[in-house]
Amino acid sequence: MAPLDHSEIPTSEDVFSAAQNIAEQIHHTPLLRSRQLNELTGANLWFKCEHLQKVGAFKARGAANALSLLPEGVEEVATHSSGNHGAALAWAAAQRGLSCTVVMPETAPKAKRAAVEGYGAKVVTSGPSLAERESTLAAVLLESGAHPVPPYDDKRIIAGQGTVAMEVLQQSREQGFTPDVMVVPVGGGGLLGGVGLAVAALAPDTLVIGAEPAGADDAQRSLRGGVHITTQQPDTIADGLRATLGDKNYAVIERTVRDIVTVSEAGIVNAMQLLWTRTKQLVEPSAAVGLAAIIEHSARFRNKNVVVVLTGGNMDLDKVAPLLSSEKK
Amino acid sequence: MAPLDHSEIPTSEDVFSAAQNIAEQIHHTPLLRSRQLNELTGANLWFKCEHLQKVGAFKARGAANALSLLPEGVEEVATHSSGNHGAALAWAAAQRGLSCTVVMPETAPKAKRAAVEGYGAKVVTSGPSLAERESTLAAVLLESGAHPVPPYDDKRIIAGQGTVAMEVLQQSREQGFTPDVMVVPVGGGGLLGGVGLAVAALAPDTLVIGAEPAGADDAQRSLRGGVHITTQQPDTIADGLRATLGDKNYAVIERTVRDIVTVSEAGIVNAMQLLWTRTKQLVEPSAAVGLAAIIEHSARFRNKNVVVVLTGGNMDLDKVAPLLSSEKK
Repeated sequence: MAPLDHSEIPTSEDVFSAAQNIAEQIHHTPLLRSRQLNELTGANLWFKCEHLQKVGAFKARGAANALSLLPEGVEEVATHSSGNHGAALAWAAAQRGLSCTVVMPETAPKAKRAAVEGYGAKVVTSGPSLAERESTLAAVLLESGAHPVPPYDDKRIIAGQGTVAMEVLQQSREQGFTPDVMVVPVGGGGLLGGVGLAVAALAPDTLVIGAEPAGADDAQRSLRGGVHITTQQPDTIADGLRATLGDKNYAVIERTVRDIVTVSEAGIVNAMQLLWTRTKQLVEPSAAVGLAAIIEHSARFRNKNVVVVLTGGNMDLDKVAPLLSSEKK
Repeated sequence: MAPLDHSEIPTSEDVFSAAQNIAEQIHHTPLLRSRQLNELTGANLWFKCEHLQKVGAFKARGAANALSLLPEGVEEVATHSSGNHGAALAWAAAQRGLSCTVVMPETAPKAKRAAVEGYGAKVVTSGPSLAERESTLAAVLLESGAHPVPPYDDKRIIAGQGTVAMEVLQQSREQGFTPDVMVVPVGGGGLLGGVGLAVAALAPDTLVIGAEPAGADDAQRSLRGGVHITTQQPDTIADGLRATLGDKNYAVIERTVRDIVTVSEAGIVNAMQLLWTRTKQLVEPSAAVGLAAIIEHSARFRNKNVVVVLTGGNMDLDKVAPLLSSEKK
């Protein structure tokens, strides 16, 4: 593996710049509360509603920032993505009149593929593994000369995703509370890294905790073991969190994130059902991982002010809804 | 049928008083927008999010108002309800330390029955028809001496539900737009009547339009025919709209509502799917009837500023979710 170029690792200042770069394009999403979920968890919860962001996911932030920083003359961009990053790049490219190609694994949710096409991008299908996705993207880049915008292992993307934490901290000041903890789902680590950078600079007393499926726990093993693990066989319903932690992401997370906890598949489904029924917010499985972590590791969150990022709301309802059990009580 | 006691018909002033009576207990719910749904309908839409209200439905407003106006010494209340009014009364009674009994038809959604029980009320099961519900309630009242709080045909309830329109009008001023039309689902007519009263007094240039399933179209036939029809055989997925328009409701609606339009069952499911996927809001079938009306009667809403009340978000997900088709696009 090539050594990391330190100029490619984002800083808190890159997050601050990103907030200015994307201010006109993105939504300021609300913070939602639920008395019932506070009672259930014993924590004071605020849900940051990024499923109400443009394209239905925080990924709009990173994509908008990346395209605001494109080299002169670029007319076409490309990426690989199982879903929300692809839709975000397609949306951001359409806003700037750029062509866009997205390599998507054949296993991507139909709704996410439809969203990418709906924003006018070209979809190229690949095999499901990271290696297959990357090699297909390499072929696309070679043929088209498009500029690559990686889904997470990219300075501009990490910085863009971090703007969500700047917004949360501003909202918490306006609403008169101090977050003790921010809980952030982690797949490739763009969001977690960006949040870590923003919080380290602006609210150093707030802990940042990552949450990931036990079936895709490379980030926990990396952070807890102190060695960046780059292989895993992900097995989780949380399709947005199957990616492996990126190099730049790991470098940032190691310095800014307190810990990463894992959650069970049953815990993800239960948390998703609670969010659907108690907050009436239609979040995707990956977005439920934060609440799942608070429930499965309740002792570390009890009586704390906890902000949970609801990362997205895009899924195939006909696949996901049957997982929910009927309301019992 | 006994002649109506005119002192029992609510006025706009009753709605204004209700707003003060319930101010401490209810949420000011947000107005939500969706660029995609604006493009789809050709109208400028604002969705009033009463599925985010206490108990997940606007019914909290009427129940809270009714209990603020109880005769001295009442310690127990009772009602019949297929769902949200029962949960609302149970919630409002618990807030005041009152006992509560709710007669629910055996066909009521499990989630709604669970909510009533969850707020500590006693549930008595009845047959599904209005006559069976009313006779069971009569027996409960006779035995318990409880004070009845009807689900819709009640001055206090109509006035309470009308507060949602006062809130909408205040929000529209703050956000700088004038509603041309408010679209309100109608079952028993408590919400539609209350909204009619508020709008007639505060925004007489705004049209109020009711929307109901074609399979439960008594309100349209009553208003258009000029004779209050009190029988129907409801057949609709919108379980909150199967009730028959009440006497007091009809008297108010006749004076304050421009028209009532009907929608198909397929239109309700389609609108619900659009709301779930485009706004990420988990609304129940009844709550989708407003958007369904705008889609099925698009000419009368095109280029208008239209406020649609999303009335509630309570349902049996295992029954409702399978109705949605997978995303095609």
